[in-house]
Amino acid sequence: MNSFGEKLRFSTFGESHGKALGCILDGVPAGLEIDEAYIQSELDRRKPGKSEFETARKEADKVEILSGVFEGKSTGTPIAMVIFNTNQKSKDYTNIKDVFRPGHADFTYFHKYGIRDYRGGGRSSARETAARVAAGAIAKLMLKELNISVMSGISEVAGIKSEKFDYEAAKSSIIYALDSDKEQAQKDAILKAKNDHDSVGGVSRVIVSGAPVGLGQPLYYKLDGVLADAMMGLNAVKAVEIGDGVLSATTLGSQNNDEIRAKGFETNHAGGILGGISNGEDIVMNVYFKPTPSIFKEQHTVTTENEEIDFSLKGRHDPCVAIRGTVVCESMAALVIGDMLLLNMGSNMDGVKKHYH
Amino acid sequence: MNSFGEKLRFSTFGESHGKALGCILDGVPAGLEIDEAYIQSELDRRKPGKSEFETARKEADKVEILSGVFEGKSTGTPIAMVIFNTNQKSKDYTNIKDVFRPGHADFTYFHKYGIRDYRGGGRSSARETAARVAAGAIAKLMLKELNISVMSGISEVAGIKSEKFDYEAAKSSIIYALDSDKEQAQKDAILKAKNDHDSVGGVSRVIVSGAPVGLGQPLYYKLDGVLADAMMGLNAVKAVEIGDGVLSATTLGSQNNDEIRAKGFETNHAGGILGGISNGEDIVMNVYFKPTPSIFKEQHTVTTENEEIDFSLKGRHDPCVAIRGTVVCESMAALVIGDMLLLNMGSNMDGVKKHYH
Amino acid sequence: MNSFGEKLRFSTFGESHGKALGCILDGVPAGLEIDEAYIQSELDRRKPGKSEFETARKEADKVEILSGVFEGKSTGTPIAMVIFNTNQKSKDYTNIKDVFRPGHADFTYFHKYGIRDYRGGGRSSARETAARVAAGAIAKLMLKELNISVMSGISEVAGIKSEKFDYEAAKSSIIYALDSDKEQAQKDAILKAKNDHDSVGGVSRVIVSGAPVGLGQPLYYKLDGVLADAMMGLNAVKAVEIGDGVLSATTLGSQNNDEIRAKGFETNHAGGILGGISNGEDIVMNVYFKPTPSIFKEQHTVTTENEEIDFSLKGRHDPCVAIRGTVVCESMAALVIGDMLLLNMGSNMDGVKKHYH
Amino acid sequence: MNSFGEKLRFSTFGESHGKALGCILDGVPAGLEIDEAYIQSELDRRKPGKSEFETARKEADKVEILSGVFEGKSTGTPIAMVIFNTNQKSKDYTNIKDVFRPGHADFTYFHKYGIRDYRGGGRSSARETAARVAAGAIAKLMLKELNISVMSGISEVAGIKSEKFDYEAAKSSIIYALDSDKEQAQKDAILKAKNDHDSVGGVSRVIVSGAPVGLGQPLYYKLDGVLADAMMGLNAVKAVEIGDGVLSATTLGSQNNDEIRAKGFETNHAGGILGGISNGEDIVMNVYFKPTPSIFKEQHTVTTENEEIDFSLKGRHDPCVAIRGTVVCESMAALVIGDMLLLNMGSNMDGVKKHYH
Repeated sequence: MNSFGEKLRFSTFGESHGKALGCILDGVPAGLEIDEAYIQSELDRRKPGKSEFETARKEADKVEILSGVFEGKSTGTPIAMVIFNTNQKSKDYTNIKDVFRPGHADFTYFHKYGIRDYRGGGRSSARETAARVAAGAIAKLMLKELNISVMSGISEVAGIKSEKFDYEAAKSSIIYALDSDKEQAQKDAILKAKNDHDSVGGVSRVIVSGAPVGLGQPLYYKLDGVLADAMMGLNAVKAVEIGDGVLSATTLGSQNNDEIRAKGFETNHAGGILGGISNGEDIVMNVYFKPTPSIFKEQHTVTTENEEIDFSLKGRHDPCVAIRGTVVCESMAALVIGDMLLLNMGSNMDGVKKHYH
Repeated sequence: MNSFGEKLRFSTFGESHGKALGCILDGVPAGLEIDEAYIQSELDRRKPGKSEFETARKEADKVEILSGVFEGKSTGTPIAMVIFNTNQKSKDYTNIKDVFRPGHADFTYFHKYGIRDYRGGGRSSARETAARVAAGAIAKLMLKELNISVMSGISEVAGIKSEKFDYEAAKSSIIYALDSDKEQAQKDAILKAKNDHDSVGGVSRVIVSGAPVGLGQPLYYKLDGVLADAMMGLNAVKAVEIGDGVLSATTLGSQNNDEIRAKGFETNHAGGILGGISNGEDIVMNVYFKPTPSIFKEQHTVTTENEEIDFSLKGRHDPCVAIRGTVVCESMAALVIGDMLLLNMGSNMDGVKKHYH
Repeated sequence: MNSFGEKLRFSTFGESHGKALGCILDGVPAGLEIDEAYIQSELDRRKPGKSEFETARKEADKVEILSGVFEGKSTGTPIAMVIFNTNQKSKDYTNIKDVFRPGHADFTYFHKYGIRDYRGGGRSSARETAARVAAGAIAKLMLKELNISVMSGISEVAGIKSEKFDYEAAKSSIIYALDSDKEQAQKDAILKAKNDHDSVGGVSRVIVSGAPVGLGQPLYYKLDGVLADAMMGLNAVKAVEIGDGVLSATTLGSQNNDEIRAKGFETNHAGGILGGISNGEDIVMNVYFKPTPSIFKEQHTVTTENEEIDFSLKGRHDPCVAIRGTVVCESMAALVIGDMLLLNMGSNMDGVKKHYH
Repeated sequence: MNSFGEKLRFSTFGESHGKALGCILDGVPAGLEIDEAYIQSELDRRKPGKSEFETARKEADKVEILSGVFEGKSTGTPIAMVIFNTNQKSKDYTNIKDVFRPGHADFTYFHKYGIRDYRGGGRSSARETAARVAAGAIAKLMLKELNISVMSGISEVAGIKSEKFDYEAAKSSIIYALDSDKEQAQKDAILKAKNDHDSVGGVSRVIVSGAPVGLGQPLYYKLDGVLADAMMGLNAVKAVEIGDGVLSATTLGSQNNDEIRAKGFETNHAGGILGGISNGEDIVMNVYFKPTPSIFKEQHTVTTENEEIDFSLKGRHDPCVAIRGTVVCESMAALVIGDMLLLNMGSNMDGVKKHYH
């Protein structure tokens, strides 16, 4: 239950304030060049403490490969990666030891498991997503070999929407903004919330370019279904759209259908997926993050003994989790696409015979 | 890849115009009373041809149980159910034999598998969802024993939104409308599109009441993630929200957090799920269906030989797939909850010891 | 839990005396010619009532394909097959309604599920293996396209061992005997046991020829491990050997190692598997069946109320389950090899890139 | 493919001469006391270099828990454990860099993956089994809470068979001998082979006591099938028996059936499993290990370029892998039983309702 994927499968471990976190990535084809500097650079994009728009917690997030790579290449065996926690101030959390923070998973974990790991959310913390980014970086290396790219950026903060989606611009923006014209307003909204001891929501837009037709295993491991699972499973995500998403429910069939010409589809309302299978167009999705539940305003809550208290959180928190979250969305998308590429290989006898003759 | 669920798992088979479709439902605990009339009544809710708001194709959708039930009770062995197709006019489809219908999966299936099963979409047809409803009905029977209910209705058609969510009213509405004040306008929108040889999108809202705290297996089989997969995997679905969904991305943490009192949560912006685990509140989701891609207006498309043609579809189609789709959403939700109930049983040693001592 | 295989996966349903039994075979590559007569001929090899060496129960075992095949070819979608029971004399079983037959699964099913499906063992009956043979026949069709064959025969009955392994001879032997010189003695042993109201054990030997190097997914989906699971999971099987098996534990490394020359291995003590991966030699295994537990001699047992009784079974039973069991062993071997062929396709980047270039 | 188990699932990583090896154990119920000293003591039983009957390679095999345990108890989240390699003399292996050692997986890994990780067999080395023992130790802690024990010992070396099975004696024997009267002869056989630059096979016998009736998920995750997979998947194992195993194929039904009395079964030919489900008796299995393929005698083999050479292996190797292997068999058995215990919990509605009342 801590694994994701069928043929390219990763399993993660670790808690926010434990010794270490990490993952095992299984199913990477042998012979892939494993560029460790690239993996680290992906982790650096997600790591906390880079700006005032993020939590002040400092973590080097230095990743170490323990297995599965020999002489710079994958061997076909599981690739284990570990990140040791260096800045786990558990004492930050003694004030929440017996308190369920509103909007957090404290309440549900305690009731499910009967245990309160109060150290910063324990396993439910978004800190775990560092392991996803490490795995996703290797998936991206694999996709690169097949000329497939995964990019993303922030398309909305606190209701301030991007009007253009410039993925290159996003790369150099400290908040990964897709629309440089909206970036300042989006930044302002984040800082205002932060100064108010509050937080804001945001939206990540992810695009996969260059994927071949045929990815997705219908009917119950569809590309869109698995992407939805991958994204909805991220901390703070409450909605996922493919292509036109919510909007498509308000349109007519004649507006929403993507007509086809010999060179390809005339439009891409479908977001690159038909019947759960990629159609060769860009695969596009939007991922909606709620505002960080960690706010410093006083809130009603209860203790583990179900006593009502008024509670003010302390500590260090992202004012907008979507920012660093978008890097994780990219990683998850890359892992899903990588999985689907491998699963698709036995779809028809021609391919099987070509492989084995 | 045609199976869904981990411990309560169903596998489906069948194409739109093949001999039969059906499913195997595995993992049903022994000793559950299997009310066949109830299963049939659920299929009747989904079956086509009941009104002018649906396709004119007539199917009895008579379900037959082949195994797994003895003397009226489940035996713990797989329950196979079959529905024979009776009205499979394949000849309806000879005009699309070599044509990819825009908005349909024809294009992607052909390129993935190298085969064109042109009979009404073959496997990719929503006809397969009858099998999901049969499985879902048994899941609902199981949930009833635990006082958990799953209900749904149409909250939006062609942009006309419900202002109230009356699940009882939906049961007696021919379009499963949640808001009787909006029902007529929603019906009018469907019929207008139908008369225009077009189609409309719609939204299903699903609610699960009575679910205990603790359902969901983090971090990669979360309740919200799996529901998102289940819903996004349905034909024509392009977006899924949990709780406030898209809206939550525009709010502040202080607005979005659900504060807690001794008796429970003060609000339910989270839609009953925190950290991927149910929190005891109603589990709420919205499922967005695109307009039926089958429209009778002329469209651009290509043949299997990639020749461009202008094409007008014929046949019998739902003008708004969300209507019958909402029944399927319920079924999928019931199957997911049933699965999570079984998976949750070994979460802590107290439960395990109580079970075995 | 009623499914087997990862990428080529089958799920079965049905009980000995229910309406029908059958399977869904998922993951068959599209474009495979599905020879229905061949599938039926495989079922005919396993079906009961062909001779005095088998149970007198007559079943046509007529298989019907419900889905997944269009115009004679697989479409890549699940292939459902059903066999309706025609000779389910449940009344035969009223005398065992409340009795646990020694050596049978009656006792364990009752205690696990709390239900007594007394109709001939219900789900635990070897009758279910007809569904495996139907699925296995399609796997064999797939293997044929890749020039891989699976054969088997009876190498031992009641301690009378074959001294040669003539798989062609086995095909025309009514007891599938591998050694025509031992066949009469083996037949005599079966009939003697039958006349004594007793039963005998036997051994099936299975060989896979033509399999490429590389099948098997270490470390936890190894070819030998999965074959062992597949065979040990068959009714009445109590031991499985790969290659020299038990004997290898008594030898020296210098005797047991298969030395290698440019043209291949000099011996095949390993049975074609090294490190859980096929090495290109014949894959060889022995499967040991206990004597049929259904005997007519009086035995001690208890009722479902745990009352001690002396009990004499009635009915129709195979005097040596290994005979028909060997056909099922072949089927399972074919299904495992088929699964491994598909799983192996993404093992290295060269293969992946060649597939997608 | 590097994971085992369904609900109690472990995934391993690491190679013989890589930085580290380890595992993630997922699905451990929360609240289990994790006795680290006990885990280490289990590793110490398996670790190399303890006597002249084992390889001279010295490894501390010091295990470190990275996650999933808080204040001495499992939290329900994945437990990651790591063992850093300290004595990885890769240079030992430069002489085999381009050579396929007979009886080893070198040949098959190279052809499957296209990569030669020559460092002591890389992933295919039995060194990986240390990770299994770490996971198995936690499974044993869980079983202890339910009064289930798993024990094992060596029942045969080089054809010298035990006549008694004294599991207590085995614990204090340096070769885990079950029969102290045969221990010296067995030791002599090992040392003789060692002095002859050869190796010997052996047999491990494993017993599970105290398991409840009902473990095993038929028909395709049966207790005997999964145990067979678990054992056959171990390095050097070539045969697995449950209960009377091979012998049962030579007997009559009247001899092999275990008759039943009110207090239980009169005999245990079945080895505690009927129809793939535990019957409450001791679960007994025999696991046959081939002689270590690493011998120092000159052998025929080929290089990675398929050139024929005569080759003499150097290095440090176990003369009888069954010895340390028996500890791994125990671990695997414990992991399988633990998995089955959790899976069995939803078998009938009474249990489900009791859990959720």
